[in-house]
Amino acid sequence: MSERDEQAALFANEGFYRAFCDRDVAAMRALWAEHAPVACCHPGWGALVGRDAVLESWAAIMENPASPAIVCHDARALMLGEGCVAVICFEEMENGFTLATNLFVREGGAWRMVHHHAGPTAERPRRRRTAPPRAMH
Amino acid sequence: MSERDEQAALFANEGFYRAFCDRDVAAMRALWAEHAPVACCHPGWGALVGRDAVLESWAAIMENPASPAIVCHDARALMLGEGCVAVICFEEMENGFTLATNLFVREGGAWRMVHHHAGPTAERPRRRRTAPPRAMH
Repeated sequence: MSERDEQAALFANEGFYRAFCDRDVAAMRALWAEHAPVACCHPGWGALVGRDAVLESWAAIMENPASPAIVCHDARALMLGEGCVAVICFEEMENGFTLATNLFVREGGAWRMVHHHAGPTAERPRRRRTAPPRAMH
Repeated sequence: MSERDEQAALFANEGFYRAFCDRDVAAMRALWAEHAPVACCHPGWGALVGRDAVLESWAAIMENPASPAIVCHDARALMLGEGCVAVICFEEMENGFTLATNLFVREGGAWRMVHHHAGPTAERPRRRRTAPPRAMH
């Protein structure tokens, strides 16, 4: 993977967390793939498969005032084949940390998200950003 | 993805759980990719990155008599780009269930594992195999 590809994938990963924290459902819809199969494993849930099920789940979570804000730390990109990249990162919330795997594929010249799997972790990121998780409203 | 590709990916996924339950460290080594970057997120752990770190963790877990046997349920394969597939499945252990994402890339004509991310789930598989998790001895 070129450094440019890696930076673009990490930028797409940032866009995911920005859309979430901004509660921007349109931005969230735009960053998930339209042609590749998509899936999502929210912490504690079963697997959601298919764009409609995945995007409905994100809309419901983002519209829930109780959903915590999230800050992403220690994101690392791993190129898996020519057109697929996995980004692994910590997610910091007010009530703890999760570890996430976010998968992206090339679609229309951009990295589009195809999978998110997150679960609790007892580990902590090596590099913490100074900004705490933003309150969502 | 052709049906043949899908079956091959699901077969590789079965091989992963078989190697684990058989405590077959050599088989576990053989099924992880040698050229593509590899990573692993065990439940509750931080991310392990790199073949050595990942395989050492599996060897330690497999050599630990307290490690539970695992039975895989409801495996579904999603083709992500030309040479990358994600398999999502439930993992049944004596003490509960986890949900896993296992990623494979084509290497040397076979699907080789590049990433495993598992975490607890409150959901249960739709189709349970009749065989309970095998004891590891």
